[in-house]
Amino acid sequence: MTEPRIGDVYGEVLRDALAVATGIGPRPLVGGRLPRPVIEIIERDDGLINGAPAAHYLDPPADWQPYDHRAVDRVRGATLDVGVGAGRIALLLQDRGVPVTGLDISPGALAVARRRGVRDLVHATVDDHVADGRRYDTFLLLGNNLGLFEGRERAPALLAALAALARPGAQIIAHGTDPYGTTDPVHTGYHERNRRRGRLGGQLRLRLRYRELATHWFDYLVCSPEEFAALVHGSPWRLTDLDTRDAPYYLATLTLTP
Amino acid sequence: MTEPRIGDVYGEVLRDALAVATGIGPRPLVGGRLPRPVIEIIERDDGLINGAPAAHYLDPPADWQPYDHRAVDRVRGATLDVGVGAGRIALLLQDRGVPVTGLDISPGALAVARRRGVRDLVHATVDDHVADGRRYDTFLLLGNNLGLFEGRERAPALLAALAALARPGAQIIAHGTDPYGTTDPVHTGYHERNRRRGRLGGQLRLRLRYRELATHWFDYLVCSPEEFAALVHGSPWRLTDLDTRDAPYYLATLTLTP
Repeated sequence: MTEPRIGDVYGEVLRDALAVATGIGPRPLVGGRLPRPVIEIIERDDGLINGAPAAHYLDPPADWQPYDHRAVDRVRGATLDVGVGAGRIALLLQDRGVPVTGLDISPGALAVARRRGVRDLVHATVDDHVADGRRYDTFLLLGNNLGLFEGRERAPALLAALAALARPGAQIIAHGTDPYGTTDPVHTGYHERNRRRGRLGGQLRLRLRYRELATHWFDYLVCSPEEFAALVHGSPWRLTDLDTRDAPYYLATLTLTP
Repeated sequence: MTEPRIGDVYGEVLRDALAVATGIGPRPLVGGRLPRPVIEIIERDDGLINGAPAAHYLDPPADWQPYDHRAVDRVRGATLDVGVGAGRIALLLQDRGVPVTGLDISPGALAVARRRGVRDLVHATVDDHVADGRRYDTFLLLGNNLGLFEGRERAPALLAALAALARPGAQIIAHGTDPYGTTDPVHTGYHERNRRRGRLGGQLRLRLRYRELATHWFDYLVCSPEEFAALVHGSPWRLTDLDTRDAPYYLATLTLTP
């Protein structure tokens, strides 16, 4: 098989999902005729593959999961939405008058967020954004973006970059999933193999695919609250709240140490 | 990346789709909690990948495309449903009192068809089924299963095997898709590359994937009615009707030459 071309998978997924939702612009059709839902494909390095409909990235607040509502209710002050995607979270905060900035590394995602009305958008990684001189009171890592901490290697650097972007008393609100409730051998075997290699059990090695495009392989962390607490230990942040009401999903709130 | 394990992808897809539709049995959940639609993943050898919701395999007649209704209305006599899948076509024919046999190479698909009420099922290829001694008046290759003719190498053998299974005056009703209406370079480039290699333009090289499983790579044909007519030429069959009312989809009817 030919390897797929590297490209802005997430941006293409969101662009097509927006076209399907609005009926505007070219969009995927079966046989050039029947509408085809936009499916984001996630491949894991052990050969596991899953397709997930992308429409949820555009969901209005009425269709959100309860933890998303509890997360946005915790927001205060200048807010950085890390991985703004199609902007569903940023749009609600804008409506509430919160000064919110959307950050993403996907040009396509930023274009979609802009078309949907998000006003303040930045194309950068968290690390690169430090040099822009802007500072925040709240950092949101929703939509499972606790995963961006990747594992033991990346977490300290990302926590340091967020601290460099933080005003005194700032908070990080991160949405994670505890992966260890499963008894599915496809997953438990993967977790064991990861640990044998010195990685966290749920330190996933993934790539996204959509049509002819793929991302490079990247690490994405699903971990227990205890593992996350251990990653935060010794950083400029302190785990000050853990909301597990929708377990296995959770919201971890970190507060900048004075 | 580890290569996925070879297995009964289609059977697993249908089993999970049935579990989701009925609410009975283990079924895919996000985080062990939220229902996840069953997505069949189709990978092409140029790196193109598509996910398609599998629920349509269970669709009741009210949700079918018009060409499926026109196809079943053409059925007469003992009928072999080639690639019976979850049995949606066979169930309707049973209801109409048509003596219908469902054929599939997927044990999982046959298990789902049986649970849904299809009574006469055979686990075999068309070629192997010849030795069983049963003979038919109608062969159905619906759900795009004109693709089973694969290309110039396979088509004569499959047409011969169907002729060996046929009673005098028998017919084949095959559903195909003309792929050449597209201007998408991802597809037109693939068609050109195929032709340079001596294959039909729409002679797809595919594998199916679902979770940890993949099929072997196989050829599956999407071709124009003209290309299909050329494949049939010189076989024991004659193209006696072409229904292009839902172009780019079409129904090709072949009749056994006396």
